[in-house]
Amino acid sequence: MIDIRRDLHQHPELGLEEHRTSARIQSLLAEMGVEFRAGLGGTGVLGLIRGDGRGKVVALRADMDALPLEDQKEVEYKSKVPGKMHACGHDVHTTMLLGAARLLMERKDPLPGTVKLLFQPAEETVGGAKLLIEDGALENPPVDAIFGLHVDPALDVGRIGLHYGQRNASSDDLKIIVHGTSAHGAYPWEGVDAVVATAQVINAIQTIVSRQIDAREAVVITVGMINGGTQGNIVADRVELVGTVRCLTQETRRLVLGQILKRAEGAARGMGARAEVIIEPSYDPVVNDDHLLGIVRSNAQELLGEENVVVFPKPNMGVEDFGFYLAETRGAYYSLGVRNEERGIVNQVHHGLFDVDESAMAYGVALQILNALAVLTQC
Amino acid sequence: MIDIRRDLHQHPELGLEEHRTSARIQSLLAEMGVEFRAGLGGTGVLGLIRGDGRGKVVALRADMDALPLEDQKEVEYKSKVPGKMHACGHDVHTTMLLGAARLLMERKDPLPGTVKLLFQPAEETVGGAKLLIEDGALENPPVDAIFGLHVDPALDVGRIGLHYGQRNASSDDLKIIVHGTSAHGAYPWEGVDAVVATAQVINAIQTIVSRQIDAREAVVITVGMINGGTQGNIVADRVELVGTVRCLTQETRRLVLGQILKRAEGAARGMGARAEVIIEPSYDPVVNDDHLLGIVRSNAQELLGEENVVVFPKPNMGVEDFGFYLAETRGAYYSLGVRNEERGIVNQVHHGLFDVDESAMAYGVALQILNALAVLTQC
Amino acid sequence: MIDIRRDLHQHPELGLEEHRTSARIQSLLAEMGVEFRAGLGGTGVLGLIRGDGRGKVVALRADMDALPLEDQKEVEYKSKVPGKMHACGHDVHTTMLLGAARLLMERKDPLPGTVKLLFQPAEETVGGAKLLIEDGALENPPVDAIFGLHVDPALDVGRIGLHYGQRNASSDDLKIIVHGTSAHGAYPWEGVDAVVATAQVINAIQTIVSRQIDAREAVVITVGMINGGTQGNIVADRVELVGTVRCLTQETRRLVLGQILKRAEGAARGMGARAEVIIEPSYDPVVNDDHLLGIVRSNAQELLGEENVVVFPKPNMGVEDFGFYLAETRGAYYSLGVRNEERGIVNQVHHGLFDVDESAMAYGVALQILNALAVLTQC
Amino acid sequence: MIDIRRDLHQHPELGLEEHRTSARIQSLLAEMGVEFRAGLGGTGVLGLIRGDGRGKVVALRADMDALPLEDQKEVEYKSKVPGKMHACGHDVHTTMLLGAARLLMERKDPLPGTVKLLFQPAEETVGGAKLLIEDGALENPPVDAIFGLHVDPALDVGRIGLHYGQRNASSDDLKIIVHGTSAHGAYPWEGVDAVVATAQVINAIQTIVSRQIDAREAVVITVGMINGGTQGNIVADRVELVGTVRCLTQETRRLVLGQILKRAEGAARGMGARAEVIIEPSYDPVVNDDHLLGIVRSNAQELLGEENVVVFPKPNMGVEDFGFYLAETRGAYYSLGVRNEERGIVNQVHHGLFDVDESAMAYGVALQILNALAVLTQC
Repeated sequence: MIDIRRDLHQHPELGLEEHRTSARIQSLLAEMGVEFRAGLGGTGVLGLIRGDGRGKVVALRADMDALPLEDQKEVEYKSKVPGKMHACGHDVHTTMLLGAARLLMERKDPLPGTVKLLFQPAEETVGGAKLLIEDGALENPPVDAIFGLHVDPALDVGRIGLHYGQRNASSDDLKIIVHGTSAHGAYPWEGVDAVVATAQVINAIQTIVSRQIDAREAVVITVGMINGGTQGNIVADRVELVGTVRCLTQETRRLVLGQILKRAEGAARGMGARAEVIIEPSYDPVVNDDHLLGIVRSNAQELLGEENVVVFPKPNMGVEDFGFYLAETRGAYYSLGVRNEERGIVNQVHHGLFDVDESAMAYGVALQILNALAVLTQC
Repeated sequence: MIDIRRDLHQHPELGLEEHRTSARIQSLLAEMGVEFRAGLGGTGVLGLIRGDGRGKVVALRADMDALPLEDQKEVEYKSKVPGKMHACGHDVHTTMLLGAARLLMERKDPLPGTVKLLFQPAEETVGGAKLLIEDGALENPPVDAIFGLHVDPALDVGRIGLHYGQRNASSDDLKIIVHGTSAHGAYPWEGVDAVVATAQVINAIQTIVSRQIDAREAVVITVGMINGGTQGNIVADRVELVGTVRCLTQETRRLVLGQILKRAEGAARGMGARAEVIIEPSYDPVVNDDHLLGIVRSNAQELLGEENVVVFPKPNMGVEDFGFYLAETRGAYYSLGVRNEERGIVNQVHHGLFDVDESAMAYGVALQILNALAVLTQC
Repeated sequence: MIDIRRDLHQHPELGLEEHRTSARIQSLLAEMGVEFRAGLGGTGVLGLIRGDGRGKVVALRADMDALPLEDQKEVEYKSKVPGKMHACGHDVHTTMLLGAARLLMERKDPLPGTVKLLFQPAEETVGGAKLLIEDGALENPPVDAIFGLHVDPALDVGRIGLHYGQRNASSDDLKIIVHGTSAHGAYPWEGVDAVVATAQVINAIQTIVSRQIDAREAVVITVGMINGGTQGNIVADRVELVGTVRCLTQETRRLVLGQILKRAEGAARGMGARAEVIIEPSYDPVVNDDHLLGIVRSNAQELLGEENVVVFPKPNMGVEDFGFYLAETRGAYYSLGVRNEERGIVNQVHHGLFDVDESAMAYGVALQILNALAVLTQC
Repeated sequence: MIDIRRDLHQHPELGLEEHRTSARIQSLLAEMGVEFRAGLGGTGVLGLIRGDGRGKVVALRADMDALPLEDQKEVEYKSKVPGKMHACGHDVHTTMLLGAARLLMERKDPLPGTVKLLFQPAEETVGGAKLLIEDGALENPPVDAIFGLHVDPALDVGRIGLHYGQRNASSDDLKIIVHGTSAHGAYPWEGVDAVVATAQVINAIQTIVSRQIDAREAVVITVGMINGGTQGNIVADRVELVGTVRCLTQETRRLVLGQILKRAEGAARGMGARAEVIIEPSYDPVVNDDHLLGIVRSNAQELLGEENVVVFPKPNMGVEDFGFYLAETRGAYYSLGVRNEERGIVNQVHHGLFDVDESAMAYGVALQILNALAVLTQC
């Protein structure tokens, strides 16, 4: 497994370009005798380990893509591709899923159900999970539960981190265009000032989080860009706001987006202007199924000891495309400790010095298998 | 005239209670042989000096009411009524109009038209001008032009102050009730916060003057009172704003009131709340007819010298119920200097030490007669 | 126990007036042979069950006060005091603590530590917990852990509800006085408009929750009352905001209150006004110790079955003066199901028809004893 | 004169490039025998008609530059320079000043004082008046009064338009940079949101006009451009506002600019951000001296009849660099009617079809001479 990981690590490929990685996976699956379908979502691979034809279907997912970063580590297995690097541990995820496949294939007894292996492209870019779903990865047979995990360099190797329920935020791309009417800046009453109307829109939007959403729901509405007007002495007829909306449940998300629409349009109209609100859904939230997370917890406690299972109190406002699977089926997504301070393995993901303690892979493989079996053997 | 003025000054009567004043006026008019009608608007008196039955009709107006102030002057003719005082010079206005009546009656030649003498109650309180108009003071015969004047303690005796066009503001009483939905203060998302919605309403209203009205028009929108909510930890379902709106022309006034309605309702709606806007018209603006003001100017220049005729560059944002007459007919309203620093006559109107240099009365009488005759003799 | 509860229920007493209740408790404790100290915080009683002189000290707390509500139930044990009612179950809390005392006293073996019984006044009014702490209830000997519970009519009898960590909000009373400068409403530029400055202050405060506080922390800032100005046509020189601030941890609370001070003062100053911010701390948050809550959970699972132990995902934004104890020592506060739909026991606390299924008391007594013993017997 | 005007009209030159125009002026002045100094402010020409060495000094000013517009008229004297056009009548202004020079030189009697002829470049671009002042055009001998006039296509030929006092606005270029602190858009509490702080700044600035400035003073503050942030999901650390400020007196201007500084900085600081306010003075206001305007008025009434002298009630919020002269000396600037509907001469300045009724030039020349003589002959 270390060989495979290091091979992948030296040959990082960006989202939707994971051709070598995909080929490697296919050849290894073929070698193990795992039935698979390639080409899902471009470079994705779907392995299928069928049991006795009955029972449940569990999916295990690994992402494959690397990042457009320069590898700054001084190690033997450093990236060989300038400007590309597995700085988010997807090489490790893929390797562990291959390891799990091997162990599942080596089992004597037939599996009491089916395990699907999802090797997914483009987690970092277009949300490759969507592509796999569109290409039927969760169908035929339909998946009952899905598990995924992510390396966590803030957690020591040998530890596991869990979130009950909410784990990652949804994300929507927000654009609001406030339309006024141009006029000479010395005669503003002949127009409608989109800049001043926009100030009201911004204030109105602030009050969604502060007033209209349950304070115990984590919601963020950020307008990161504002651009409007053409000249200092001309009343602006157009101001464009670009932002992001983060929620932790689909229900809150619907509520928040509805309020943005209502408040932005209303505030602008109240100023004699008009707001055009464009919302592009980007990521679904990762909301763990508490029962499945309980399975992960039990397995992890048994495997690593109770003291090495951390329940995180707060969700993450960042996104993870695993949420797309959870919009379709129940599942659990958790964190695998890969930190090793003694060996200097302490850098965060998306950092040029990021690395993992490879001994964590054994725990990851074991957990994924235990999780899958736990679901398959439950009545 | 000084006797009359001092008699009135010692017996001040508040708005609609000017019974003694009215009786005095009636007896003097009767003595002069002036035809009159009493009881208009309660205590008002309408004198009529008919000419040869042809020609135009000019009205001259004086107000009669005093103020609920303690007279603090130490003079012989000090108010004899505790808590009441002629602190706005209406005693002087009335006296001058009686003086004008006497002189007009003493004229040998028949008047080339008709002069109406309007002794009006309640300028300081309910806008007595309205009452006189309702009781037909401008009808039968219809009035072609009206003149009025006001003592001005900022202007030396022997000087006259004029405003072309805009002289006094209109006034509208504004009430905005912002309706939200109550909720426990710890769970605001279950309600609609009228306090926060009101902040948006206030900001929206500010932008009317700053953005939607010609900067060269003087407009003031003041919310002087704000009251809402019942308890700190309950989301307020109602906030009431009470204010005043001042404009200088009817046209701007219509525009401003329309914008208040639109922006307050719009801003509240944008917050999921509802604004109820109640506007009660209070005073009409005093906008002088420039031709008639030109007559006043000519007469004043001739009478007092060009150097003693001041054209004020700025209108007054305060109100004067003379505007109600001007909503019906053309007219001019001007200022009569009554200041005399040497004699210590320097205090503003509505001040307990206010007084006038009585020699100003001669100029006032002369001007009113000259103005009236100028209109009557113009073809 | 049912007799005691019904006796207390028929004789409800408001905060700091719990004289009869206190006397009843004292006589029962005396009867059981429990050492006690009366008069803490006025009517409070501190019972002390000493073990072998070694070991830990666990406190169990019950509140005693009733509410100023009319009892609308038609039952035998209905309140006999017009306008007062045990509508929040404190009679039940007190009864269960007496029951626990009796069972602990009946134990054969000496206690492996000390149990303190806190009968606390005035939970509903002045935060009686503070008074008990001031009178030394947690000292001599010092308390190592404290447990409390509250009846919950949303939870079926036989069930227990738990919150890990955050359970109840802190509360601070907020007053902001915005000082402007008065002027005539027609001449606002001669003053500083406190109403308009207040709109900016309100908007600035909204952005604390929306921008400056971790979205995953539940924070509520509600301004429930706003009052300012004396007349519609006078620029207001003073607007007063009264509100409440709710947080779930002391750390966030410090951050939020600091931001309120900074933003309110800053926003007002930016308008040429001055904001005076007065914050009166009201309640501390109830943050459970997760280890102690784990003890409650284990005991409850054993006693009632795993399926009857509910972990609530969201804290409560309401307050509970148990937080004052937790500011001094570790502890856990939990919910005891008392609902029984079949018997029509479904009304919320603070409702005139509120009642409990008295069979819940047995569970409450058992849990309190088990919790205490678990702490005492842990090394 | 018509020849000269048409020659200039066919050879329009933009600001600071008026070389041919300047040469033409110089040659004509030389021909008339007028002493002159060339090269002021680049292309400017200062003619000097000295009288008997005593008396006052009056300046008459004409601007010379054209506009970067395509001439769309179909006339013989259409612009011969593609993309350039005398669309603001400066050719007419220059011609009339040359005409006035000729008539003054042809006078028999010596002038009772001195007349300076200011042929000024770049009125439309850099405010050429400033350049002439810097090059000493108002010194040696110092100027006692200056007159200027502008063609007005809204006023019929044969009419003159006057403004007492305020005629044109001052202009200041405003830039406000709001500095926040960047953060990931999903974690805004780690930064300071410059977009939200800017909304408060915009609202605070609106209240200057609505609250802090005498409603009877015309003031406009327009923010025409707003730009900030780099990406929708990154909290913006910088928002830039660009705008214009218009006032009608230097006193109000000082007040307004001071308030902008104070409110913008204060509002930003209240949000934990920082506002950098950069004000670049652009134009001084044109405030006529009422005595000198009275001279223009008398002369115009005599020349054209009282009915053809219009007093405009409202100043112009646009700018005119004549204000720079008025910051140094007293003067009057007025409007010359050039409209002729019958001949289709109705288009506004800065329009490709703009033209003038050339018969207006005679009135302009006459008035400038009469104005100058009136000042020189007054004691």
